Amino acid sequence: MIRRLDINSDSYKDDLAALAASSPVAQIEIQNRVSAILEDVRTHGDTALLKYAQDFDGVKAETAAGLEVDKSLLEKALNEIDPELKAALETAAQRIRDYHQHQQEGVSRGDYEFEDQYLNRFWQKTIPMDKVGLYVPGGKAFYPSSVLMNAIPAKVAGVKEVSMAVPIGYSGSLSPVVLAAAAIAGVDRVFTMGGAQAIAAFAYGTDTVPAVDKIVGPGNTYVALAKRAVYGHVGIDMIAGPSEILVIADKALPIDSAVYDLFSQAEHDEMAQSILISTDQDYLDQVEARIYELLPEQPRQDVIKASLQNRGAFVKVNSWKEAIQLSNALAPEHLELAFADVDQYVDQVTHAGSVFVGVHTTESFGDYCSGTNHVLPTSGSARFSSPLGVHDFQKRTSFTRCSQQGANFLGPVAATMARAEHLEAHALAAESRVEKG
Amino acid sequence: MIRRLDINSDSYKDDLAALAASSPVAQIEIQNRVSAILEDVRTHGDTALLKYAQDFDGVKAETAAGLEVDKSLLEKALNEIDPELKAALETAAQRIRDYHQHQQEGVSRGDYEFEDQYLNRFWQKTIPMDKVGLYVPGGKAFYPSSVLMNAIPAKVAGVKEVSMAVPIGYSGSLSPVVLAAAAIAGVDRVFTMGGAQAIAAFAYGTDTVPAVDKIVGPGNTYVALAKRAVYGHVGIDMIAGPSEILVIADKALPIDSAVYDLFSQAEHDEMAQSILISTDQDYLDQVEARIYELLPEQPRQDVIKASLQNRGAFVKVNSWKEAIQLSNALAPEHLELAFADVDQYVDQVTHAGSVFVGVHTTESFGDYCSGTNHVLPTSGSARFSSPLGVHDFQKRTSFTRCSQQGANFLGPVAATMARAEHLEAHALAAESRVEKG
Repeated sequence: MIRRLDINSDSYKDDLAALAASSPVAQIEIQNRVSAILEDVRTHGDTALLKYAQDFDGVKAETAAGLEVDKSLLEKALNEIDPELKAALETAAQRIRDYHQHQQEGVSRGDYEFEDQYLNRFWQKTIPMDKVGLYVPGGKAFYPSSVLMNAIPAKVAGVKEVSMAVPIGYSGSLSPVVLAAAAIAGVDRVFTMGGAQAIAAFAYGTDTVPAVDKIVGPGNTYVALAKRAVYGHVGIDMIAGPSEILVIADKALPIDSAVYDLFSQAEHDEMAQSILISTDQDYLDQVEARIYELLPEQPRQDVIKASLQNRGAFVKVNSWKEAIQLSNALAPEHLELAFADVDQYVDQVTHAGSVFVGVHTTESFGDYCSGTNHVLPTSGSARFSSPLGVHDFQKRTSFTRCSQQGANFLGPVAATMARAEHLEAHALAAESRVEKG
Repeated sequence: MIRRLDINSDSYKDDLAALAASSPVAQIEIQNRVSAILEDVRTHGDTALLKYAQDFDGVKAETAAGLEVDKSLLEKALNEIDPELKAALETAAQRIRDYHQHQQEGVSRGDYEFEDQYLNRFWQKTIPMDKVGLYVPGGKAFYPSSVLMNAIPAKVAGVKEVSMAVPIGYSGSLSPVVLAAAAIAGVDRVFTMGGAQAIAAFAYGTDTVPAVDKIVGPGNTYVALAKRAVYGHVGIDMIAGPSEILVIADKALPIDSAVYDLFSQAEHDEMAQSILISTDQDYLDQVEARIYELLPEQPRQDVIKASLQNRGAFVKVNSWKEAIQLSNALAPEHLELAFADVDQYVDQVTHAGSVFVGVHTTESFGDYCSGTNHVLPTSGSARFSSPLGVHDFQKRTSFTRCSQQGANFLGPVAATMARAEHLEAHALAAESRVEKG
């Protein structure tokens, strides 16, 4: 069922390329429909938003103001969900808050102030955004963990108002667990809206929905294309591809743990990717054999099977060094290092979203409650992007205060460069700050 | 010539909205041509790249390998340009390097490592990207300052290989000043290529051109649309709109300095925006009068005039507090605070790209040589984005190492949340780490 790669085989390079390949499909037709929706909401505001909410999502509200969910309903949901689940969400939220608080302290340490030898002074301030919009899908699957992972870093970063958009699902109502998670995460406003129209409302604002500075959160193709289209007018997070895990393991990791870790990625969807790398051929054989034994017990066995067949792989390498090199080339979203002498190798990791070190550390902890963020760069984008964090809800501003002495020094340098670029007014502006001899 | 706004007038709100408006034009036709070029280069590599370089840019190279500029030509250019300009570029480069070194030290301070009460250990590492591509326009205008501002932060950030794409200009050859700037900035490889095909080559790689992790630098509509299209496959910087300056001043700032600062923005292009805000109506009147006197001496007076007419404005406010509030609402790319008691107000700035404090500090210093970056968020995007910096050439990775004790605690929490999300394999993966009672 699972593709096998051997680093010593002739076809290894081609096999590897096939493994990493992701083919973005052109979606011109949906793109055009998304553009029309965006323009309609931008131009007609609440009227258009309400119409789409009624037509597409089956919302019963008769005015756009009715799309906003009363805050009391969030607290109500929190008190009605299963107490064990409530406790788990609260524990997870507190740990995510603590983790991102460490990150926030790091951001504060990163700002600086210094003076050059001419007494020119420079400083950088990191300042939170005012308003952020969080999209939460409302389909069959609902993910309260996603509410925590997006909203909490925004609040820790200091964002004044976090608004959430969530369409009603097939049940005809909002998920109480999602509302409870919103209450725990400190979401400020909740709107019953979905699809491209929700993204448009956040990007441009309507009388009911505030225009935000940045939109984050996962969504279907309409949502993803709408986010891409409004990028620049507002900020967006990365557009996520299928989820991936790369497990580098030997028999230090119990066979069943290896199987469940691979399954846990594969059960997300049929294009999710689960890869196991080992120096130990026997271990690979044993894990594969156990996959066949455990698969029939899995509620999502069809998805898991399709995912492992489509994009799964077992790779035999000669050394852990080779394993890490392969991992760096793939830049996986999730990386588990679960072999005996992992400490020698962990510092060689250069491209990965979130790394789970040692046999006690399963990705599943990071998905829910260890505290690190589960919104991570997919499809190799860990080469150039980062886990979601407080950084994504703040921006830096640079401040410069020149002295007269500093202006005297900088003036001629700037003027020379400006004239080389044929920008005379730039040169004159610079020279006008220089003391007359 | 220049629009006047008064915060006390009835039409102020509408006037302000008109001022901030930027209407992105749909460019479907160019978009389709860009898509075709991207696909051609992705599929046919060097063959397509060379064809476009010959057809569009008039390159004479007969093989794709001939598109790479020999490193010796960079040093040659450096020794041939005007010595005063060479010295200015070297001074600017050293100051930009020093500034971004402070920023890099801040990034290093921002990483962290901590342990929770269950002895689970968490740490974050910030790691540079491997390869970055810098686009430099090759048209009539050439901007060596742009080479310094993009390449130096990448090198300070630790990027291994910075490649530059620059098409030959109308002269039929590359600008020696741009090549000299590349030499000073430490650019590793230079390719004679431009337009969407250059972006495609950087995004997908060809036999000659390396695939990079991120593409930065300004460009025309083809370049901007191509960058937007490859976003996600590689990282890109912000797509820049017209440049803007907002000057808040009173008579502490000499009239001529105010005029040249406004001109220096307006001379960039006809859609650039220059705004002057003051509490002092007389000052506004005097600056406007002086504009008419100084304009005829300006080499780029046609562009300046069109820009001031199109998008310039003078705004009378009642207090500096109102001025800062207006500035925060506009989130300008460049903000000059040049009034007498500026120190009381500078901390109220929340949204701006780069702030120039005090009458000795002209934006022109920041454009060239004070050391801060001149690649800044335009069109109000300072609400959610930052000046280019070392951060843009690095990414963060989170590491988690759980203890057995920690896994025992996290296992049930993760399993409860996973089952609420109907992800059974996630629950089993978590539980498989828990010690059997």
